Amino acid sequence: MKILGIETSTFSGSVSISDDDTILCEYVFNTGPRHNEVLIPTIERLLSDCGFGKNDLDAVCVSTGPGSFTSLRIGVSTAKALCYSLGMDLAGVPSLEILASNAFWSGNDVCAMTDAGRGEVFFSFYDLRGEEMNPAEIATPESVCTRVREKTVFVGSGALLHENLIRETLGKSAVFLPANLNTPRASGCALLGRKKILSGQKDDPFTLTPFYLRRSAAER
Amino acid sequence: MKILGIETSTFSGSVSISDDDTILCEYVFNTGPRHNEVLIPTIERLLSDCGFGKNDLDAVCVSTGPGSFTSLRIGVSTAKALCYSLGMDLAGVPSLEILASNAFWSGNDVCAMTDAGRGEVFFSFYDLRGEEMNPAEIATPESVCTRVREKTVFVGSGALLHENLIRETLGKSAVFLPANLNTPRASGCALLGRKKILSGQKDDPFTLTPFYLRRSAAER
Repeated sequence: MKILGIETSTFSGSVSISDDDTILCEYVFNTGPRHNEVLIPTIERLLSDCGFGKNDLDAVCVSTGPGSFTSLRIGVSTAKALCYSLGMDLAGVPSLEILASNAFWSGNDVCAMTDAGRGEVFFSFYDLRGEEMNPAEIATPESVCTRVREKTVFVGSGALLHENLIRETLGKSAVFLPANLNTPRASGCALLGRKKILSGQKDDPFTLTPFYLRRSAAER
Repeated sequence: MKILGIETSTFSGSVSISDDDTILCEYVFNTGPRHNEVLIPTIERLLSDCGFGKNDLDAVCVSTGPGSFTSLRIGVSTAKALCYSLGMDLAGVPSLEILASNAFWSGNDVCAMTDAGRGEVFFSFYDLRGEEMNPAEIATPESVCTRVREKTVFVGSGALLHENLIRETLGKSAVFLPANLNTPRASGCALLGRKKILSGQKDDPFTLTPFYLRRSAAER
């Protein structure tokens, strides 16, 4: 199954092309909020590098949030339009699950945490089997720390930003990843989305919506 | 410190640009043995995406092997020529250490293992502090398994290829990573190389050589 992965939940973003579990190419950009300019040319570039045309793709897997309002809209809209146009399968994958999958294998609880601005973070806890313990929430990092009982791996931009506070509060119960494993990757999105598709949990390009947790500035 | 990362030890390869610990962009290609065609255009592309010129870079960090003979030559030659031409700092980083750094944080021993062909693997063990326990060696995966005493995280193309054998031999003592964390990444190379440079362990573009473990077909 040839899969296009799209991850635009944060300031950075990434696009990947994979074939089943093999990542053929992936481009990660953290070059400012230009997802709208970057996304289609990047997809075209990766397809060309793989020697594929658009019609060779079988599915698109896209990160659905929570995260940056506009970036998520761009990623999800692009994924839906591609699937609608070309008749490919679609799978939306929660952004925090993509992040957490960098650490699921470690045998510890995982807390995926991204910066939500205004001193808050988006977060979900996952248990040692990779099962989500709470749907994504928004809170201060201090409040997230009060919910930690076991040794926990912290991953994501929120974990990097609040590392000192978390370490001071939790001591050796808090484990952190190297800097390059703290962004959600399109390749991780593709791996998780493929599992969803294989188990029959496809999404519908007419109804898939990103997941924000906060109302947009315009709606407020 | 603006760093160009180059990783070409395997069939796949990657290039990254980072600023201190922040990955600005990274391109991973697993599209066949075309490193020679792909490398310079990819570097130019990433520089352009970051809005940098060649002369904005402070250092090049390059994966030094063990791995594919020709691919390593291309990566290391390119890194040396750039540093020689532009007067940047150079750091070579062992390929297996780059792979293992995906799992150093887990609190377990790590075995980085890449496919060496002919039924053998290149491998190094690292302890729970990330210290190398053996310099890179070449052996059969069966023989590597006999050296495992503690719970060990297996990472790399060799781990993927021989996963069934390793699981059958070691049972729950063997832990594996998701597919997208089994390639060495240029961004990981840059993070480790930066530490080397900051601690004064720069390499010399006149003398740095890749590390093979096997003689080339031509030498044999």
